[in-house]
Amino acid sequence: MKPSIPKGTRDFLPSQVAKRNYIFDCIRSVFETYGYVPIETPVMENLATLTGKYGDEGDKLLFKILNNGDYLAKADSEALSEKNSAKLTKSIAKKGLRYDLTVPFARFVTMHQNDLSFPFKRYQIQQVWRGDRPQKGRYQEFYQCDVDVVGSDSLMYEAELVKIYDDVFTALRIPATIKVNNRKVLYGIAEAAGVEEKFMSMTMAIDKLDKIGQDGVTEELMQRGITTEQADFIMSTLKIDNLNDLFEAFSASPTGQHGIQELREFHNYLDRTETNNNIQFDISLARGLTYYTGCIFEVITDKVNIGSIGGGGRYADLTSSFGLKGVSGVGVSFGAARIYDVMEELDLFPSDISQTISVLLIAFDEMTHGHAFSVLSELRANGIKSDLYPSPAKMKKQMKYANDISVPYVLLVGSEEMETGQYSLKDMNTGEQKKYSIEDIKTVLA
Amino acid sequence: MKPSIPKGTRDFLPSQVAKRNYIFDCIRSVFETYGYVPIETPVMENLATLTGKYGDEGDKLLFKILNNGDYLAKADSEALSEKNSAKLTKSIAKKGLRYDLTVPFARFVTMHQNDLSFPFKRYQIQQVWRGDRPQKGRYQEFYQCDVDVVGSDSLMYEAELVKIYDDVFTALRIPATIKVNNRKVLYGIAEAAGVEEKFMSMTMAIDKLDKIGQDGVTEELMQRGITTEQADFIMSTLKIDNLNDLFEAFSASPTGQHGIQELREFHNYLDRTETNNNIQFDISLARGLTYYTGCIFEVITDKVNIGSIGGGGRYADLTSSFGLKGVSGVGVSFGAARIYDVMEELDLFPSDISQTISVLLIAFDEMTHGHAFSVLSELRANGIKSDLYPSPAKMKKQMKYANDISVPYVLLVGSEEMETGQYSLKDMNTGEQKKYSIEDIKTVLA
Repeated sequence: MKPSIPKGTRDFLPSQVAKRNYIFDCIRSVFETYGYVPIETPVMENLATLTGKYGDEGDKLLFKILNNGDYLAKADSEALSEKNSAKLTKSIAKKGLRYDLTVPFARFVTMHQNDLSFPFKRYQIQQVWRGDRPQKGRYQEFYQCDVDVVGSDSLMYEAELVKIYDDVFTALRIPATIKVNNRKVLYGIAEAAGVEEKFMSMTMAIDKLDKIGQDGVTEELMQRGITTEQADFIMSTLKIDNLNDLFEAFSASPTGQHGIQELREFHNYLDRTETNNNIQFDISLARGLTYYTGCIFEVITDKVNIGSIGGGGRYADLTSSFGLKGVSGVGVSFGAARIYDVMEELDLFPSDISQTISVLLIAFDEMTHGHAFSVLSELRANGIKSDLYPSPAKMKKQMKYANDISVPYVLLVGSEEMETGQYSLKDMNTGEQKKYSIEDIKTVLA
Repeated sequence: MKPSIPKGTRDFLPSQVAKRNYIFDCIRSVFETYGYVPIETPVMENLATLTGKYGDEGDKLLFKILNNGDYLAKADSEALSEKNSAKLTKSIAKKGLRYDLTVPFARFVTMHQNDLSFPFKRYQIQQVWRGDRPQKGRYQEFYQCDVDVVGSDSLMYEAELVKIYDDVFTALRIPATIKVNNRKVLYGIAEAAGVEEKFMSMTMAIDKLDKIGQDGVTEELMQRGITTEQADFIMSTLKIDNLNDLFEAFSASPTGQHGIQELREFHNYLDRTETNNNIQFDISLARGLTYYTGCIFEVITDKVNIGSIGGGGRYADLTSSFGLKGVSGVGVSFGAARIYDVMEELDLFPSDISQTISVLLIAFDEMTHGHAFSVLSELRANGIKSDLYPSPAKMKKQMKYANDISVPYVLLVGSEEMETGQYSLKDMNTGEQKKYSIEDIKTVLA
């Protein structure tokens, strides 16, 4: 039997885990400095929790787990005789795999509301599963990396989350542009233009500004039933890049003005701090509009044409579908897989990231091999990542292994070394070889 | 809708994640010092990989994932009309959830053999799923924590893995007894007693020595068709706790003597190092015999009656079911959930483990709140885990939040502090309050 893994899933080799953990450790460290705490939710959720939360298309992409035991005994017999898969599923599968981290988080907050202090600041780095057709760069099993605060509507958190982006991308050395907009500003444009009822439609056209340009958007707006006059108003509003002028332009839209005030308050916090990356108001930034109600964010890097490497925003009402009302939240997520690809492309991972140990001990016969094991134990007791080739094999074979695992130093343990207590440490990069006592080796390798 | 999670699964609250990560970080750090590297395998494996590896009972406990789309179109119509669940499954579910980390590891080694350097030393800390009936302390979704080396039969690794146990339990402050035996010694007893063909049966009786005592085991041996004379020989052999005497007693069993030689070689390595825990030869230690072929290990703690908190051993042939022959390996695992329970019961977690931030800033009005945000940013830029209450709410409310999140210090940011640059730092344990400059606060909280 030739082994394989399901399409759309991956094994991670040690060097890949090391690189991924480098990114996660960096993100986690920033999250914790900002007072966010980790939670974990089960991989298996009840389908009652998941179904209906991601639209019809999402429901189809949920992985469902067959009930254990004699599941056909309780199966919907009508659906069975009709051979209706969609109808049968409900009666033979109660559980499904997590599809994102947001819905489980909303369930978590609702279930544990009495055990949490609000504002509750949590981060979550876990895998999710989606039955999308696997293709290059798109997997059925992948990590999400979310950070949210719920139970407060302070704009301080919007500023804090942008600072988190700034800190993380600075630490990872990815030059980032953090785009900021506010859903109320978009609504304000519709309101001021008198096309509130075409808000979604208008936004979908505006969202294409980057791709199809001003003329393209104007044309698309008119195709969507917006008059030339209204379209001109919308396009001229989109050109305003200054919050004060926008506030004026929104004299007919209280929602628009409210959005501007939120952006001002956000900047009042943010401008009191220093940032390294480019933070940019982008009036055409839309994102998933059904979901967000206030500020929205998206991160790109000019260096690699890969799309957004992060995004998020304010939602006024996350948990009400689970019965908990009036809990406002704001959160952002990091596109871990894309960040990984950007780091690879820009060669940003530390060069020693795949280095697993600092030194490999090599012995020449049974006697020195036993002695080398005691030297090894002493190095390890001092926290030095080290190893010993498992047998006194031929020098050539042992040195090949040292090369294969890219170890920077080899320590030769022969009978002379054993007698004198002076061991030859070979630098694998320069080829240089010098004698040291164990105490000195501890210092050299520390 | 009242939200819930599937029976046998758990949410992990921040303090639980912190405690679990404390254990994992400790284990991971020891693994890496010993030169082991992390891999990850998919949660979803092909059922062809998993089925038949865990016995009939295991096959039943596998969670199977319903094929996406119109799965009934390709369903086994005979099984459908018979309403035969077991028979139908194969045609409607191709994937299942990982049941342990060993089988996926064997598949991984086989698939990636050309990308790995042997001996390959890997660790893996991931979740597994089993459809056992949920009960106290037994879950359907739980972490396993395995460390293995494949591609060498050196007994050095047996000694190394016992050292890893010793280091981890020392670091966690759990007093441990590490029991050691060798499967060849057990086979030697059967061989010397002339009951090779009853080897499994004999071992199952011996395995009960702790529970039913010597008379009980003797009785059980005879019930299993072993003669009084043979049973007496077996029981007298079990009393020998000295490897030299056992070697003599195995004069009629080459396998038994080979087992003793392996144990001697293991001790030759181990005895060259210092250990803190009790390492004990236990001739009645059996573990999963179909699997292991050499040394076997089990860890218990005398302090808590909870069963084994770790175990493992040597297997001569892990990957042959996937077509890769002659790869010997040895590995051990840590019972993470039981270790957690032991640490709770013995109160071994650091007292500040649930502490998330070092200081909470509190402001009194809009103006000082904005200023506090810039102070906060400076503290965070210096790596100090810190937070600011999201609004200048009533003092009482802010102090309640500080208490709820168990923060050790509160920093008061009022207009006087803002002017003088001297901020009041309140020690939440002692109630003591002192004024510091930002620079000094960085030092106090560093």
